[in-house]
Amino acid sequence: MNESIPDTMMAVAIAAPGGPENLVPETRPVPHPGVGEVLIATRFAGVNRPDVAQRLGRYPPPPGASDLPGLEIAGTVAAIGEGVPAERLGEAVCALVTGGGYAEYCLAKADHCLSVPEALPLEEAAALPETLFTVWHNVFERGGAKAGETLLVHGGTSGIGTMAIRLGKLRGLTVIVTCGSDDKCAAARAIGADHAINYRTQDFVDAVAAITGGAGVAVVLDMVAGDYTQRNCDCLAPDGRLVTIATLGGAIATIHMGKLMVKRLVLTGSTLRPRPDAVKAGIAASLRREVWPLVAEGRLRPVMDRIYPLAEAAAAHARMEAGEHIGKIVLATAAADAGAGRTFRAD
Amino acid sequence: MNESIPDTMMAVAIAAPGGPENLVPETRPVPHPGVGEVLIATRFAGVNRPDVAQRLGRYPPPPGASDLPGLEIAGTVAAIGEGVPAERLGEAVCALVTGGGYAEYCLAKADHCLSVPEALPLEEAAALPETLFTVWHNVFERGGAKAGETLLVHGGTSGIGTMAIRLGKLRGLTVIVTCGSDDKCAAARAIGADHAINYRTQDFVDAVAAITGGAGVAVVLDMVAGDYTQRNCDCLAPDGRLVTIATLGGAIATIHMGKLMVKRLVLTGSTLRPRPDAVKAGIAASLRREVWPLVAEGRLRPVMDRIYPLAEAAAAHARMEAGEHIGKIVLATAAADAGAGRTFRAD
Repeated sequence: MNESIPDTMMAVAIAAPGGPENLVPETRPVPHPGVGEVLIATRFAGVNRPDVAQRLGRYPPPPGASDLPGLEIAGTVAAIGEGVPAERLGEAVCALVTGGGYAEYCLAKADHCLSVPEALPLEEAAALPETLFTVWHNVFERGGAKAGETLLVHGGTSGIGTMAIRLGKLRGLTVIVTCGSDDKCAAARAIGADHAINYRTQDFVDAVAAITGGAGVAVVLDMVAGDYTQRNCDCLAPDGRLVTIATLGGAIATIHMGKLMVKRLVLTGSTLRPRPDAVKAGIAASLRREVWPLVAEGRLRPVMDRIYPLAEAAAAHARMEAGEHIGKIVLATAAADAGAGRTFRAD
Repeated sequence: MNESIPDTMMAVAIAAPGGPENLVPETRPVPHPGVGEVLIATRFAGVNRPDVAQRLGRYPPPPGASDLPGLEIAGTVAAIGEGVPAERLGEAVCALVTGGGYAEYCLAKADHCLSVPEALPLEEAAALPETLFTVWHNVFERGGAKAGETLLVHGGTSGIGTMAIRLGKLRGLTVIVTCGSDDKCAAARAIGADHAINYRTQDFVDAVAAITGGAGVAVVLDMVAGDYTQRNCDCLAPDGRLVTIATLGGAIATIHMGKLMVKRLVLTGSTLRPRPDAVKAGIAASLRREVWPLVAEGRLRPVMDRIYPLAEAAAAHARMEAGEHIGKIVLATAAADAGAGRTFRAD
C-alpha cells in the first residue's frame, strides 16, 4: 500500500435495517486490494435503487461483498493488487463494485473499471457504471434491441430510464417512456425520449398502441413486474422481448401463455450484482468496445440530478425514495470537495 | 393438370364441431395447384392434436387454408403449379400443409415439401413433418438446445414427445420426459429417453431435481402451460429456456418474476400453422441441411403407433383423445392400400 493511504477512512454504513436515518457515518479500515483488484480513492459514488433495498434489509450483499452500500464509484487508482499493471496507479476510473461505494476508499476488480476520458467529469463518471452495465446488458445484449426498433422503458426519469433514453437514441432506437407526472414526461422528452406517457392519466398499453399505430414495440425494459407483466406483453409486437430487471410492483405475475405463443414473445430478465466477476468483466469489455467511444466523444453523458456530500447519504436516499429525482443522484467524498475543487450543485 | 387426376376425391371433413363422429367422408373437388404449389396424391396423412382441436371448433383454419383437417402428408407429386420445376412430378415427398391432409389429394407449397429418401417408408414420412418442424424449431432454433445439455419434455410418448426423444438423442442431449403411467414411462425409455417420470405418482419438479443433482435442465418443451409454467421454471437451470407450444392445461399462468430474473430464464413459445410461408420454408431449409441427412441414413425415424384407413379417421381421433397411443397415428388413403400394396398393422 502506498504510504499516502491512511489506515482508516470515513464510510457510510447501514446501522440497522430501516429508514434513511439508519445510514450513518463510520470510521472503517481502508481495505487492501487482493489479486486482480485495485483500491480506488473515491471521489464520487452513485446512488441506486438496490442501495435503498439493501438499507431496508431486503437485498443482502452477496457473499464476499462489503457490507457497506454503494455499487458504483469514480476516483483514482490509489493502490493495486497482485497481477494489476503498475501503470494503472493514478488512473482516473469509474467502476462497478459489489458494495462498499459509500466510502473514501473502495475495492474494485481491475477489469470492472472503465478509464475516465478527459471529456467526462468524475461526478458524471460515478453515475455511469450501474445504469450503463444494466441498460447495455438488458436492452442490447439480452433484449437484442437493434437500430430501427422501438423500446418502451418504465420510469423514464430514473437513472435507468434516462440512460435507456440516451443510449437508446444513440443506438438508433425509437424510445417511449412512462413517467408519473406531466412534468416528468416533459423532462423525459427534453432528455431525448421520442414519446412519454403519463401512466397516472393514461393507460400505457392503449398509449403505446396509439403511438405505434397498433404495431407494438420490440423491447420493453421493465422494473415493475407484478401486473405490469401482461400489460408489457400486450405492448409487444410479434417476436418482442420483455426484459425485467426489478419487481417494484411485486414479483408475482399472471400471464397469458396462449398470447405469448401467438406473438412468439420472449420473457426474460436478469440481476447484475450477484453475477460472477467474469460475466461483469465481459460486459465491461463489450462496453469499452461498443459504448465507451460515445462517452469519450462526449456524446453519451448521464443525466445528473443532484450531488450530496457522502455524510448526507440519508438525504440522498430520502430524495430517491420520494421519487423526486430526475436522473442520477451522486455522493461526493471530502476528497472530491477539497481535492477536485468542485462545488456541489445548488439545491 | 395431368389427365390421370380425377375431378373429385374422397376426403374426411368436419361436419360440425364436436366429437370424433363428426369426421365424415365426403366427395370433394380435387384442388388445383397455384403458383409455387404442388398437388400431392396422398398416400398417408399424419394425425395431430391440432386436428382434434379443429374438430372441436377450437382451432379454426387460418385464412386461405382448406377447411379439411390434416397438417402433414406423404405421397407423390401428381401436378405442379406455375414456377415449380417439371422434374418434381412423380417425386415422393412429405409435406407440412396448412390443412386438407385428410384427403386423397392435397395442395402443398413446393418449398414446404421434403423429398422422401429410399430408406423411409411413406407412412413414416407422413408422420414426420408436423413433429419435426415443431421439435426442430422450438427445441433447437428457439430453445437453442446444444449438445451436452438436458431437455425436459412433457408427454413423452406423444408424437412430439417421441420425436423430441429421438432427435434430442441424435443431437447429443440428455432427454428427460414425463408420462402418465409406468407403462408409458417404460415405452419412452425404450424409445431412447434417458429418464422418464410418471407425473401421476411423482412430483416432476422434485424428480427433475433428483435426476439432475439439483442442477436443473437447460430447456423445457411444454404443451401444458397453466400451472405447469412455474413448475417448468422451477425445473430450469440458470439461463434455462422454457418453450411452450400448446396450452392443454390452460392458457393462464402465474409466474414468479423475481425467480425468473435471478436464474435469467427465457420464457418463449410459438405456433406453427399460422406462420408465413417464408418462415416455414426457412424451417424446411434448415431441416434439409441439419436433420434430413439423419433421416436419409435411417438414423431418425418416427415412432409409429397405428395406421387407420382414411375413412376411419373418427377412430383415429378417438384413440388420440383417449391418450392410448405411443407415437404417431397415421391415416392411409385407398391409394396407399391398393397402390403401395402395404397392409395395415395389426391392432
